[in-house]
Amino acid sequence: MESLVLHRNTTTLENPAEKQPTPLSELGEFKLIERLTKKLTSRNKNVVKGIGDDAAVIKTGGKEVLLVTSDMLCEGVHFDLLYSPAMHLGYKAVVVNLSDIFAMNGEPQQVTVSLGLSNRMSVEFLEELYKGMQLACEQYNVEIVGGDTVSSQSGLVISITAMGTAGEKEVTYRSTAGENDLICVSGDLGAAYMGLQLLEREKTIFESDKGIQPDLSGNDYILERQLKPEARKDVIAALKLAGIKPTSMIDISDGLSSDLLHLTEGSGIGANIYEEKIPIDPATAMMAEQFNIGPVTAALNGGEDYELLFTIDLKDHEKIAEIPGISIIGHMTGKNEAANLVTISNTVVPIRATGWQAFGNE
Amino acid sequence: MESLVLHRNTTTLENPAEKQPTPLSELGEFKLIERLTKKLTSRNKNVVKGIGDDAAVIKTGGKEVLLVTSDMLCEGVHFDLLYSPAMHLGYKAVVVNLSDIFAMNGEPQQVTVSLGLSNRMSVEFLEELYKGMQLACEQYNVEIVGGDTVSSQSGLVISITAMGTAGEKEVTYRSTAGENDLICVSGDLGAAYMGLQLLEREKTIFESDKGIQPDLSGNDYILERQLKPEARKDVIAALKLAGIKPTSMIDISDGLSSDLLHLTEGSGIGANIYEEKIPIDPATAMMAEQFNIGPVTAALNGGEDYELLFTIDLKDHEKIAEIPGISIIGHMTGKNEAANLVTISNTVVPIRATGWQAFGNE
Repeated sequence: MESLVLHRNTTTLENPAEKQPTPLSELGEFKLIERLTKKLTSRNKNVVKGIGDDAAVIKTGGKEVLLVTSDMLCEGVHFDLLYSPAMHLGYKAVVVNLSDIFAMNGEPQQVTVSLGLSNRMSVEFLEELYKGMQLACEQYNVEIVGGDTVSSQSGLVISITAMGTAGEKEVTYRSTAGENDLICVSGDLGAAYMGLQLLEREKTIFESDKGIQPDLSGNDYILERQLKPEARKDVIAALKLAGIKPTSMIDISDGLSSDLLHLTEGSGIGANIYEEKIPIDPATAMMAEQFNIGPVTAALNGGEDYELLFTIDLKDHEKIAEIPGISIIGHMTGKNEAANLVTISNTVVPIRATGWQAFGNE
Repeated sequence: MESLVLHRNTTTLENPAEKQPTPLSELGEFKLIERLTKKLTSRNKNVVKGIGDDAAVIKTGGKEVLLVTSDMLCEGVHFDLLYSPAMHLGYKAVVVNLSDIFAMNGEPQQVTVSLGLSNRMSVEFLEELYKGMQLACEQYNVEIVGGDTVSSQSGLVISITAMGTAGEKEVTYRSTAGENDLICVSGDLGAAYMGLQLLEREKTIFESDKGIQPDLSGNDYILERQLKPEARKDVIAALKLAGIKPTSMIDISDGLSSDLLHLTEGSGIGANIYEEKIPIDPATAMMAEQFNIGPVTAALNGGEDYELLFTIDLKDHEKIAEIPGISIIGHMTGKNEAANLVTISNTVVPIRATGWQAFGNE
């Protein structure tokens, strides 16, 4: 073992030649992951797809492939215990992972749950958290098969890995959209983001005004979309029933902009989506107006919708029209084309990834 | 959605009837997991083994079963960046997960890596961390297939899930030791714990004494056992080669005491292990003497050895004797018997789980 040197500045200790360390905020989340993982080499013949999609795809020797995805939620970053009931939080933590399995056109089967806990938490709080996780597992027919429970010096950390299965040929990737394919999205967008804005506003009032309880009534839809989202198992089933296999698919966690760019960049082609076609619930639009936010901005950049964004071949146009709750919002274009938003006034605006920037200097 | 109420005391908000919340420190780690998971029901016909062993065992339809295990490491609890070089830490984080796969008599195949990062970390630090993980993957022929990279408001959190494979009949559980089986352990015990004691002592000196660098020379073995442990892939291979299938197996992460109790309680029988047979490296014994700790105490309660503790049928006695580096430390006894340590002076002492208590009031 090389001789060990203790360091006060623990996070720059590995910086070669004592150069100025590069702060994380200089790179976005996606750039950081790209930089960290670019040197990783594939060494396993059973790995059909490693890093870079909603889930990894692994051959098992059986008829179906294994799908694996992991998500981590940290207190104060991804949730606020002031307004996130423990049971809802447990439910959501499981659901966001299952959503990634559905986005691969798979069926979730098991999860492992690792929790980082601080001493200030009560056993009763954790029981509620587990109750929520268990409820999600019942809802989606999934089983908790393991995990880890450790102490954390700071807040609550929830790290979940979900496993699922799919026929190898049924798996849908981000990178396989074809030119002129139709772009579809399930449900409506932007609601979870507006729910979050509302909760944050009421939290500020609650904290500054001697604990006056906020009036959240009448906003059930957007609050539920934020606090207790669902994964679109029903959409996957409806597509199967209709005999449609999407040519590409992703779930909307970072926002329509970022996630559409994953499809276009992954597939090496462009896209046009139409502002007027983006599905937005009236409750979302109303709250956006209160906040002086364009509803389309909430849909494009808000994230946490856990809806499915997918492309289909033109030949499936009639079939998709028969499935309720699916909107065709545009179409893929050709190679070397950009991803564009065509506004109501017919202006063409290039789409940028303005989703959640984990390490930004906000 | 029920009407939402904001709470200042966020961690007791779910406590029914406003009873006094139960602090986590009232339960040990194992009791807590037991309480949280006892209501979980098995709902998946493919799950051969869920919670309660080193890894879950899942049927895939192929010839081999899937093994899955998750571990979370939190800064300030499981590692200290003052003396843990980033590359070693990355290496260790992967290895401790692979160790659980080997403990099921399996072959690790893939891992997912989720990281919670704080803004104070540099990109260079993370690159070193990844370099260590990649090194472990090369060493054990494993591939990183996914994960998540998020921001954490506190320290570094590393959550890894490892997947592996084994023939269904080759899997070794904690609960299947037989009466009179021989108890074996690989390598030697207590070294990682003494390495930790040394590092903690030198840290205190470093912090109080104006940054004087400690002299850690000559302690390579115990330091490496703490900072850069290995998983016993070689032992699994040697057992296979010798034609021995352990009747039960676990890896020693919490300490010989706790982990032996997992075997005895899981299998419903007792055990006698002999103090004089417990393998301890001279470097461990020497450092234990410096700290006024009994070397056997370090071996019993220290943990983080990542050695394999297993039982074999008496008929395999001669075969096991031919494998270097395996110690027979005792034997299982019968039903309703306790787990005992027989000391050098021939006193019989019941073994208690005195391993790491995650939520204790230390």
